[in-house]
Amino acid sequence: MKKVVVIGGGTGVFTVLTGLKDYPFELCAIVSMADDGGSTGLLREEFGTLPAGDIRRALIALSDSNKKVLSELFNFRFGEETSLKGHSMGNLLLTALEKITGDFGSAIAEAGDVLNIKGEVIPVTLTRTKLFATLSNGKVVEGETNIDIPKHDGTISIKNIFLKPNAKANPKALEAIKKADAIILGPGDVYTSILPNLVVEGIVSALKNTKAKIIYNVNIMTKFGETNGFLASDFVEKMEEYLGKNIIDCVTVNTEKPTGEIVKRYEKENVEFVKNDLKDSNIIAADFLREGMFLRHDPEKLAKVLSKIIE
Amino acid sequence: MKKVVVIGGGTGVFTVLTGLKDYPFELCAIVSMADDGGSTGLLREEFGTLPAGDIRRALIALSDSNKKVLSELFNFRFGEETSLKGHSMGNLLLTALEKITGDFGSAIAEAGDVLNIKGEVIPVTLTRTKLFATLSNGKVVEGETNIDIPKHDGTISIKNIFLKPNAKANPKALEAIKKADAIILGPGDVYTSILPNLVVEGIVSALKNTKAKIIYNVNIMTKFGETNGFLASDFVEKMEEYLGKNIIDCVTVNTEKPTGEIVKRYEKENVEFVKNDLKDSNIIAADFLREGMFLRHDPEKLAKVLSKIIE
Repeated sequence: MKKVVVIGGGTGVFTVLTGLKDYPFELCAIVSMADDGGSTGLLREEFGTLPAGDIRRALIALSDSNKKVLSELFNFRFGEETSLKGHSMGNLLLTALEKITGDFGSAIAEAGDVLNIKGEVIPVTLTRTKLFATLSNGKVVEGETNIDIPKHDGTISIKNIFLKPNAKANPKALEAIKKADAIILGPGDVYTSILPNLVVEGIVSALKNTKAKIIYNVNIMTKFGETNGFLASDFVEKMEEYLGKNIIDCVTVNTEKPTGEIVKRYEKENVEFVKNDLKDSNIIAADFLREGMFLRHDPEKLAKVLSKIIE
Repeated sequence: MKKVVVIGGGTGVFTVLTGLKDYPFELCAIVSMADDGGSTGLLREEFGTLPAGDIRRALIALSDSNKKVLSELFNFRFGEETSLKGHSMGNLLLTALEKITGDFGSAIAEAGDVLNIKGEVIPVTLTRTKLFATLSNGKVVEGETNIDIPKHDGTISIKNIFLKPNAKANPKALEAIKKADAIILGPGDVYTSILPNLVVEGIVSALKNTKAKIIYNVNIMTKFGETNGFLASDFVEKMEEYLGKNIIDCVTVNTEKPTGEIVKRYEKENVEFVKNDLKDSNIIAADFLREGMFLRHDPEKLAKVLSKIIE
């Protein structure tokens, strides 16, 4: 069975895992540990635990439990206006499990056991660290949330990102990359979901040395404050800035342009359709657009193409 | 297999269930719904859910899961000083499950399923209600916590308790009482754990009409503000005040007087050893005392005696 490693954070990892779960692959998710917003941020600050949000989403995506209520429970969120301040149940469970077992790795294993997950979820690092971004005007922004939801002028571009303190790769993540047959990066927010994994010490060199086929999925839409005006080639270039040239073996790009009301809603938030300007033998351009309220990748369409690349 | 129903609340139900779990009985716990203190009280107030605390304890007692971490998780409590204000994870889980499934009964069933419980846990009522106590001086105290931890002069005795609004018995509780071979009341706080079940409309008449043997376990110690100066016979009389005469078939009383430092600690809290003044063929006087920090029933000693009465 082919070993497939998905690297990222946020909803992107969820999309890829959800789609690939139905294929005969051994799945593993390596998940960013830079999240410091919302429920995750509150728990980090108060309990000193590692960020649970992205881990929670990956666990739910891989859950193969016949008890559907368990994933509902993991996703359940107490109201923002209540004293439980919008905490998600899954985050609280992971926090409690970290306190009970004494470490985050065991907490994830226990949660994975309860959810009967098909595959493995690995935090990219176990170092308690914070994400910073240097803007093109020289200013430094502290914290993933402040980059994700820019308090600064979002038209100013990001020069680079870094972690402070320096984070060392989780040995399990390095092992998974080494043993993988395919590694999937993206879709996902470039500076707040994908790159926070690549700036962890050891990850890029592992990616350079693995025999695995490395696939990058370009986002469907740009993100204000991160990738304003990006074309498909800009996304790939940004990855290569961190990975080095000739590391990515294959790139997928969406070609289906969304239409209608939904586009106007996105335009209001300064979010644009990513045009494909890539033309090469290793570029797979196809319709990946999901129907619905969000302009995101369709898990099934994406998985169908990815599975063919992997095999 | 003999059907055994345990009626109560708090740690008493936990003790009896824990002990009886190792015997070949079909166990069912009918649990008081009057709790309004601590984590349970906060969640009741804010989310309008039914009180989870006593249900949680009964679920843990009956858990037969090979995943020990699950019952640890259910019992895990976030610090009082944190923004999660001493909430227990089990209470949060039951609250979330009530919101997800839409009713408390289903929430308990789902939690029981996850914990792989051996038996059934039934809330005595599904009516959202509150416990009141009339004191001997005519004053009325509102709320279970204010009775449990008296803000009034604890030497003033309680005349009676009642629920407002009137609570109707859960049909499942009535069914369990009807079908039972044995019903166990106590140990437990008289006014805040045992009697809150008996003042639910329909429970006493079900107890009067069942063919089951009814057993009452007298507490080991008195409780300040509830049973000051009570002898064993006072406990039985108090039960009969609500149940009627000749309903209790058998009474167990502890005979082992605790000694040492622990007694002094209890004396400081105006808690005394309950002397046995009962002498009848249906009275079983034995050593039920548990070793340890609390003067409580030993689950194994109690279960050994109870199992012989039941068979």
